[in-house]
Amino acid sequence: MSTIDTALQNLNITLPPAPKPVASYVPYVKTGNLVFVSGQIAMRDGKIQIAGPIPSAQSIEQGQQAARICLINALAVLKDACGGEGGGLDRVARIVRIGVFVQSNDGFDQQAKVANGASDLLIAIFGDAGRHARAAVGTNALPLNTTVEIELLAELKT
Amino acid sequence: MSTIDTALQNLNITLPPAPKPVASYVPYVKTGNLVFVSGQIAMRDGKIQIAGPIPSAQSIEQGQQAARICLINALAVLKDACGGEGGGLDRVARIVRIGVFVQSNDGFDQQAKVANGASDLLIAIFGDAGRHARAAVGTNALPLNTTVEIELLAELKT
Amino acid sequence: MSTIDTALQNLNITLPPAPKPVASYVPYVKTGNLVFVSGQIAMRDGKIQIAGPIPSAQSIEQGQQAARICLINALAVLKDACGGEGGGLDRVARIVRIGVFVQSNDGFDQQAKVANGASDLLIAIFGDAGRHARAAVGTNALPLNTTVEIELLAELKT
Repeated sequence: MSTIDTALQNLNITLPPAPKPVASYVPYVKTGNLVFVSGQIAMRDGKIQIAGPIPSAQSIEQGQQAARICLINALAVLKDACGGEGGGLDRVARIVRIGVFVQSNDGFDQQAKVANGASDLLIAIFGDAGRHARAAVGTNALPLNTTVEIELLAELKT
Repeated sequence: MSTIDTALQNLNITLPPAPKPVASYVPYVKTGNLVFVSGQIAMRDGKIQIAGPIPSAQSIEQGQQAARICLINALAVLKDACGGEGGGLDRVARIVRIGVFVQSNDGFDQQAKVANGASDLLIAIFGDAGRHARAAVGTNALPLNTTVEIELLAELKT
Repeated sequence: MSTIDTALQNLNITLPPAPKPVASYVPYVKTGNLVFVSGQIAMRDGKIQIAGPIPSAQSIEQGQQAARICLINALAVLKDACGGEGGGLDRVARIVRIGVFVQSNDGFDQQAKVANGASDLLIAIFGDAGRHARAAVGTNALPLNTTVEIELLAELKT
């Protein structure tokens, strides 16, 4: 089993089938050795799991859980991008950047804590290769009312 | 006539002169074979065409129209980036990513549908080379009150 | 003294120590000759200097000042990314893109002006190499209530 698959198993994480985009775009685009993964929402089994803004509809902890779901969806897409011919996520050289959008009521300012739900998981899975640049911001509204949306940029090994 | 120019003509789309930035930045930057196009707003002939949030000021359909205007502005800039010495937009290897910001009232959650105004057009123009990664999010406020803002990343042929 | 250090000195700008991320990510990631700098907030000496939305809590001018602080923090990180072995920020080939998030009350639409606080400074420091692509948007909420957050992408000389 690959290193990353083992890490996922130790964390009790099963990657879902890569989510299909809800619209006319593709889950990822490769350019050179970079993979741009489209914005992922807190959807599992075709249903948004955690919806609405923080703190009126969700707590910071639930927001972190939403960030984990988004990230796991992004990794499922990234695994697809790594291709089938062996290696899978072990082909990831580095997680370069994540963009994290947190649905927030006016005045909520703990987006960094919420985004850590994804950042901590990246480091738990990939170790140093999971250390990424990040922009985490709030927003008043997100697709399908997801509490969090995350896009990801990764570098593959050449 | 180039392939993409023909596609644009068949879609009855005339690219405007590349919009000048409203501020101290440039319309695009090339690095390697990537072109980063600055955020474009729903402006035509120096005037915002579609303003205010969805749904209180604009419908989803009007938002899609705003997304088309933003995208057409982005393509005008991208054509400039492709240079004058022949080829124009045919030099685009791939649309890599678009970032779509949709001015939204609290609780509006159909940003993906709005962004499809741009995504569908990319595929109509570029075919498979137009299939892009995407992040579409809501926001409460945008420059000059535009309903939509779109930035674009493209890869040029080497 | 390096060219850019001289420019900074002439502008009376002292780069602070590169800010440490407030969470589980890193200040920058290099991939190829690109450097992705994480979102920087208007923090100095461990304290947010300019907080809350425009215009209810801050003016456009104060927002521009916030954008300058964010940018200076980003340049401190970028200097770290340039490494210690000489050159420093002179190793920057080009500022490629900045993403500017402006905490805004509903209806505020002058994000471009606010973002110019950062854009003008980039051109003052780097000259033509500072001319960048940009996406400037509003948002209702930002980490630690900062008025502005800025992320930056730069290309280093090879």
